[in-house]
Amino acid sequence: MNGPEIERLIQLLSRLPGLGPRSARRVTLHLLKKRESLMQPLGAALADAARAIRACTVCGNLDTVDPCSICADPRRDQTLLCVVEEVGDLWAMERARIYFGRYHVLGGSLSALDGIGPDELNIGALVERVTAGGIREVIVATNATVDGQTTAHYLAERLAHAAVPLTRLAHGVPVGGELDWLDDGTLATALKARRAL
Amino acid sequence: MNGPEIERLIQLLSRLPGLGPRSARRVTLHLLKKRESLMQPLGAALADAARAIRACTVCGNLDTVDPCSICADPRRDQTLLCVVEEVGDLWAMERARIYFGRYHVLGGSLSALDGIGPDELNIGALVERVTAGGIREVIVATNATVDGQTTAHYLAERLAHAAVPLTRLAHGVPVGGELDWLDDGTLATALKARRAL
Repeated sequence: MNGPEIERLIQLLSRLPGLGPRSARRVTLHLLKKRESLMQPLGAALADAARAIRACTVCGNLDTVDPCSICADPRRDQTLLCVVEEVGDLWAMERARIYFGRYHVLGGSLSALDGIGPDELNIGALVERVTAGGIREVIVATNATVDGQTTAHYLAERLAHAAVPLTRLAHGVPVGGELDWLDDGTLATALKARRAL
Repeated sequence: MNGPEIERLIQLLSRLPGLGPRSARRVTLHLLKKRESLMQPLGAALADAARAIRACTVCGNLDTVDPCSICADPRRDQTLLCVVEEVGDLWAMERARIYFGRYHVLGGSLSALDGIGPDELNIGALVERVTAGGIREVIVATNATVDGQTTAHYLAERLAHAAVPLTRLAHGVPVGGELDWLDDGTLATALKARRAL
């Protein structure tokens, strides 16, 4: 009933994470109301980004240059390597401004349920980077989920021969978190890993 | 840190209704992962729609043709006019497939708080359409909000001289709704408007 242009737009928008058919319609109406100030710029920005952005062949980060600006930055510690599941995790680390080494993006985590094995992930390149030498620590920053931890253990096996220290992020009570709301697993981990006050 | 293309995309996406900076980042990552299958088509669809869609000069509906396909459809009852606030309301009526007359989109509702008076709405054209004759009923389908009802009463005043019957949608218990969850106002209205079983 809306003409093919609008229907196609609703259909594409409803494929975005967090948007269903209903919110996609709402977004479409909002865009149609702001054709000049939002719809056209957004269309152009999507086309620009789709054209310009590529995956870094070194670490898997997304950037307009290859190697990406993090890999190419000489001020970054080249002896530290942080392994993350997704580019979003890399962004989260960068937002926190607490890490100044380099990254390796796996592109996901091992998952028997989703049929994702080691060959689907960017693991071969990681093993090559680490065995090539010059790295003094690999920080495995996969998610604290079952799949993330499985992936971390698999990486430990694959990198055992390189004799490079592997570390993982600490588990515990999130800063600002209340014990009452915490799950038992986190609380148990936090108790076991308790430190001197 | 992400390059200007990505930052601009996040910034534009975060202006969509229902999306904040966090979900805009999530959507951006999803799009960057599906550059060929989703990002490029969405960019093109936005550009296409922004170019092709215009407001109907008769009723205010959005369509690729002017007058819109509803106004131009000779099978539609030309003596019935349904007044709605927004194009989204027109879409809702059309989805329900219960109305086969024509529409008039006001483009909002009167709102003292938002400084929206009669001149900001598509009311002049409505008065012209109704006084031009040939209409046997005007269904005022503004929202059942304070602003929507204010608008309905204002329209009744403005259209009083045309001597065309004005009606409004019935208020009451939504089909499938439970009394326990209903607000008192709706319940009172439903009781007053009760009908023979």
